[in-house]
Amino acid sequence: MQKRYLMAPGPVAVAPEILAKMSEPIIHHRSPQFSAILQRIREDLKYLFQTQNDVIMFASSGTGGMEASVVNLLSPGDTAIVIRAGKFGERWTELCEAYGIKAVNIDVPWGDAADISVVEQTLNAFPEAKAVFMQAHETSTGAKQPVKEIAALLKNRENTVLAVDAITALGVYELKTDEWGLDVVVTGSQKALALPPGLALVSVSEKAMNLAKKSTSPRYYFNFLSEKKAVAKQTTAFTPAVSLIMGLGTVLEDIKKTGLEAVFAHHARLAAGTRAAVSALGLELYTRVPSEAVTVVKTPDGIDGQALVKKLREEYGITIAGGQGQAKGKIFRISHMGHLSEWDMIIAIAAVERGLNNLGFSIELGRGVAAAQKYFAADR
Amino acid sequence: MQKRYLMAPGPVAVAPEILAKMSEPIIHHRSPQFSAILQRIREDLKYLFQTQNDVIMFASSGTGGMEASVVNLLSPGDTAIVIRAGKFGERWTELCEAYGIKAVNIDVPWGDAADISVVEQTLNAFPEAKAVFMQAHETSTGAKQPVKEIAALLKNRENTVLAVDAITALGVYELKTDEWGLDVVVTGSQKALALPPGLALVSVSEKAMNLAKKSTSPRYYFNFLSEKKAVAKQTTAFTPAVSLIMGLGTVLEDIKKTGLEAVFAHHARLAAGTRAAVSALGLELYTRVPSEAVTVVKTPDGIDGQALVKKLREEYGITIAGGQGQAKGKIFRISHMGHLSEWDMIIAIAAVERGLNNLGFSIELGRGVAAAQKYFAADR
Repeated sequence: MQKRYLMAPGPVAVAPEILAKMSEPIIHHRSPQFSAILQRIREDLKYLFQTQNDVIMFASSGTGGMEASVVNLLSPGDTAIVIRAGKFGERWTELCEAYGIKAVNIDVPWGDAADISVVEQTLNAFPEAKAVFMQAHETSTGAKQPVKEIAALLKNRENTVLAVDAITALGVYELKTDEWGLDVVVTGSQKALALPPGLALVSVSEKAMNLAKKSTSPRYYFNFLSEKKAVAKQTTAFTPAVSLIMGLGTVLEDIKKTGLEAVFAHHARLAAGTRAAVSALGLELYTRVPSEAVTVVKTPDGIDGQALVKKLREEYGITIAGGQGQAKGKIFRISHMGHLSEWDMIIAIAAVERGLNNLGFSIELGRGVAAAQKYFAADR
Repeated sequence: MQKRYLMAPGPVAVAPEILAKMSEPIIHHRSPQFSAILQRIREDLKYLFQTQNDVIMFASSGTGGMEASVVNLLSPGDTAIVIRAGKFGERWTELCEAYGIKAVNIDVPWGDAADISVVEQTLNAFPEAKAVFMQAHETSTGAKQPVKEIAALLKNRENTVLAVDAITALGVYELKTDEWGLDVVVTGSQKALALPPGLALVSVSEKAMNLAKKSTSPRYYFNFLSEKKAVAKQTTAFTPAVSLIMGLGTVLEDIKKTGLEAVFAHHARLAAGTRAAVSALGLELYTRVPSEAVTVVKTPDGIDGQALVKKLREEYGITIAGGQGQAKGKIFRISHMGHLSEWDMIIAIAAVERGLNNLGFSIELGRGVAAAQKYFAADR
């Protein structure tokens, strides 16, 4: 039985304790016992999201949360501004188009962050835009996007909300939902929360909820209003993913006990140690604005990133991610999210050293690992 | 939630797939379904033990299997020869004494292997000895014992059987039960089989079974005869550890598919890579006859082995083992058994580098890891 290590930026490694929790006997979802658990989880989600608003849970992937944002905020014929800085930016546009919503796209070169002044000009040019859709962190490039700054641009625009796909950002680094004025924040269970996929979590501001009341977009399952009603009754509109929610309860307790600050510091530490190794190996990051969620590295000239990923997965049992879309074959991505520690980063680096060597790019074995060792040791 | 790594020589890391298998709904142990599973497991155990004889399962720790050997082979007042090369050798003597059996002890310095000529002289001096008790591998010192050679000494001694504690040897390296003439071989679930603790497995030759028929030692639970009867009825004498047995079934299927040779090569590889690192770090092994089950390293002068183990466990989340008895504080032990890979060895070495440094024994960070990287890369 080959031992396998999951270090892709989602789905991520889940702690055995959480897997055990999720395999407990299923509680009926319409029971006082489950209601009590839901209540506590909903309070803890406010801590995680740094919000006083309700956080809605859908039994879906993160994309379900994105779809919910589109259909609840906008009606057919409405205009939205979409910041597209990678593959997940494109998804916002596809969702708008599917629902007859006009998407004004701001295209950002892959690996870059959106330019605030361009966003501002676009807002001025399209004052009818009811929403701005963006990623907090574009997982396909590893580039952090200027959420706080864009939120500031919207502070005095009464008729425009900001919806943020924070699927690989929330719980990874600082994201102040209420303080910064983020109307909708979406995340998924299979990233920083280190759960299996299957839960989308969406915080909704009052301003966003008012748009939901007016939206004529067809929707049933992904409906903010029916979920809000269910929250008041301490239940959910549809049958929830009970076992995932049990796992979520335990994860949230742990995050609360650890403290968000420490959780952010953990991701930052893994990222910094990994980057010390990348640099020692003479490799380059794909983005100048890297996030703490994932380290995205350019594969050296002449080396196919997909071949590297395949070698690690098939020969070494180690799953990291390659590139998507235009970055395919050009990069590899090491997650800092999930049930991972600095020791796992050492494995990832060791495996990259070996993989590159075996593909013909000569690297002195141990050099990257030594740099990470030194970083982690000094920092302790 | 601090991520934890278990690299002690038992209990060992269990694969999540096996944990999942063991959390399946419990099957009643007196059902045709369970009987069929037992049948297949009993066949597969013969492959693992390299025997044509029955392998008996007890719901107990490995010590239960040792006790079963003592009480079934010998009667009160009988004489046994015990080879004591460490803490587990001492256990044979304690068991004999508890049952009124005279133990003739051959004391071997810790870290050494038994001297064949001394064993032969003892056999000649005590022809009345009905059994020789020994370890295949003394887990407390890491020293491999000469099982095959001692078995050869017994080939022409009709009235003496050889009982081998192979708890950290069976499934780790070559041990030919029938070919070498090992009458009783004991193992436990929580070592090379990479299961949780709770199952003892004991192969019993015809010669040993005949002694069991004559033994007057008081016994009920650990009785070879009642278990042999149960085997014929495709069941067990007492309620078996159903979930562990389900896990065992899956592990044995995997071992059969992989092949014993490859399983042995895996342990040998982890051991050799780890020792390349130990040597690069200027450290020394505790024994001149190391096994593939565990690497036992002398802690450098001035460093307390227990403090090192404690630091790794409490600060880094990494559990390796310290010394026991007279080796306490003087050694640390890294397991090669369990659901571990060469990548885990790299973690173990990285952690030892950091731990020694932090305790004041200066080591160049990354040097040991680089040596292991090179070994594992070259060997691939």
